[in-house]
Amino acid sequence: MTTRMIILNGGSSSGKSGIVRCLQAELPGQWLAFGCDAFVDALPARMQTSDDGIVFAADGGVSVGAEFRELEAAWTEGIVAMARAGAKIVIDDVFLGGAASQQRWLKALGDLPVLWVGVRCDSEVAAGRELARGDRTPGMAATQADLVHEGVSYDLEVDTTHVESLDCARTIAARVA
Amino acid sequence: MTTRMIILNGGSSSGKSGIVRCLQAELPGQWLAFGCDAFVDALPARMQTSDDGIVFAADGGVSVGAEFRELEAAWTEGIVAMARAGAKIVIDDVFLGGAASQQRWLKALGDLPVLWVGVRCDSEVAAGRELARGDRTPGMAATQADLVHEGVSYDLEVDTTHVESLDCARTIAARVA
Amino acid sequence: MTTRMIILNGGSSSGKSGIVRCLQAELPGQWLAFGCDAFVDALPARMQTSDDGIVFAADGGVSVGAEFRELEAAWTEGIVAMARAGAKIVIDDVFLGGAASQQRWLKALGDLPVLWVGVRCDSEVAAGRELARGDRTPGMAATQADLVHEGVSYDLEVDTTHVESLDCARTIAARVA
Amino acid sequence: MTTRMIILNGGSSSGKSGIVRCLQAELPGQWLAFGCDAFVDALPARMQTSDDGIVFAADGGVSVGAEFRELEAAWTEGIVAMARAGAKIVIDDVFLGGAASQQRWLKALGDLPVLWVGVRCDSEVAAGRELARGDRTPGMAATQADLVHEGVSYDLEVDTTHVESLDCARTIAARVA
Repeated sequence: MTTRMIILNGGSSSGKSGIVRCLQAELPGQWLAFGCDAFVDALPARMQTSDDGIVFAADGGVSVGAEFRELEAAWTEGIVAMARAGAKIVIDDVFLGGAASQQRWLKALGDLPVLWVGVRCDSEVAAGRELARGDRTPGMAATQADLVHEGVSYDLEVDTTHVESLDCARTIAARVA
Repeated sequence: MTTRMIILNGGSSSGKSGIVRCLQAELPGQWLAFGCDAFVDALPARMQTSDDGIVFAADGGVSVGAEFRELEAAWTEGIVAMARAGAKIVIDDVFLGGAASQQRWLKALGDLPVLWVGVRCDSEVAAGRELARGDRTPGMAATQADLVHEGVSYDLEVDTTHVESLDCARTIAARVA
Repeated sequence: MTTRMIILNGGSSSGKSGIVRCLQAELPGQWLAFGCDAFVDALPARMQTSDDGIVFAADGGVSVGAEFRELEAAWTEGIVAMARAGAKIVIDDVFLGGAASQQRWLKALGDLPVLWVGVRCDSEVAAGRELARGDRTPGMAATQADLVHEGVSYDLEVDTTHVESLDCARTIAARVA
Repeated sequence: MTTRMIILNGGSSSGKSGIVRCLQAELPGQWLAFGCDAFVDALPARMQTSDDGIVFAADGGVSVGAEFRELEAAWTEGIVAMARAGAKIVIDDVFLGGAASQQRWLKALGDLPVLWVGVRCDSEVAAGRELARGDRTPGMAATQADLVHEGVSYDLEVDTTHVESLDCARTIAARVA
């Protein structure tokens, strides 16, 4: 079965979006890239300061509410529909809900062939990269490093602690059927 | 019938994205915003320099190829699927193909209730705003100002030449059922 | 005397940066553009959450501390030094301190020929544009609209409420000696 | 003598700006950060498509003309003036002219105490990171990797090929008097 979607899950500053861009360059064919950052950008601005939406706390914690969850579910179904309509898609997501977040995707995916990829990065190294990026609240990387992988099953895992984005992408690309 | 999607069409620098943000602030409920800029961002970088993808010429002309059109069709179906899954959605698009671009949406929409909005702006004024933005190739605004409306049907039209984004948004919001 | 620097002062979302880009396009010669946004970007990230630095409150208020003021004074002197070294420079600034902010510039400028420009915008219109931009804390525009002009003297004033950025730029350019 | 300025020189995608942000976080006191990217942003847009300005070729080559050089010299003098006025400053630059670029700084610096830092990165690794960033023309990293260091003298060099930005920053910070 041909892989129609690749879903990367990893904490903030673990290096997901760099891997996604390298995958788009390395994979045969044209892959669309979507991710949770683009979803958050699509929300009304006021939802970023509302408990019903998504709140980025000063300590790096992120909490989401009921309205966020509802829209996220609809977004997930729509992304899967793009894949069913013929687009090849690579997703980078942050499974704040761990196994429950994977279930959201599985429910929408049905029998669509997907490659599950865990993106790991040593918590301290990710925190250093978060500082170097300068556009994320300090603390997100450390808070999410392990949390997002709890109870999640993968086809393969990559670790960006000592491996470049491009090499991680090549490892993933080799597994795409 | 309750409006499930609002589709804004207008040339570059006609003021669509400003109206979209105001709509998200003014409309009751939470509306997701997507647009052709976000779609282009989702493409592999190499498609922005390929005839099969999308080419931004130095004179402001924009041309798209077969691979772009295929992915765009899949993206369109996915966005409509998000609306069917319960999300309210506002789109800003640039109908480079005029009536054919509207047909692409109509085919995907089926019987989903949508509000069609034309966003007009005097060509010379749009060109001035393009200069003031500083992030668009000069010439796009003038090239697209009339082109994108050819053969397209709307429920209502707004004109940003002398009307603020927020006032345009309120006019549109008043028509949302 | 040839104008060596143009200093625009106006509240948030009054349209300063659009006018600056149009000035760079319309004026003869090459003008460098700097502004308070670029200065804030040059600060250590931690100064954006410190009372000694600059704090953007949730209601749109902005307050700055002693360390910010010291660095700002050094930055001001450096910008004037660029002009003395031969660069033509256009500045967009927000005089949170009103007349005191103008004094900071006057002290550094000495006898360097400068054109002072006030950029006005009706408070309600600026607040609407702030909403349309989507990247500013709501409330900044209204809070600053009158405040920044208190006690400040200008060579000319422009009002973006009903006049496009490009037309404002042309009015200013006509006054550049 | 107290270090008043730190100047980092390295090719595109060698990791300079990440090191700068970490330096701002790690160093005692508040350091302002400026760089050649911010200087290019300050230029009129038309200079980015003019032989007198700066041209980014499709193969990653970068060439600059006479007007660019004049404004750059004035900018350099202004930055040094900020340091003389009391600000501590960290610069990231790309010495396209090698030793001649360092001379430009030396001429402006006079006796101001500065720490010179070379930022190295293996050419192939830098090219991979360029791909992962997605916002630079492919080829810049490889073209500049060695070129920018030709004939340049440093107080210390760091290599980001196998060392994180934060660790490079700590090595540099330990040398700041």
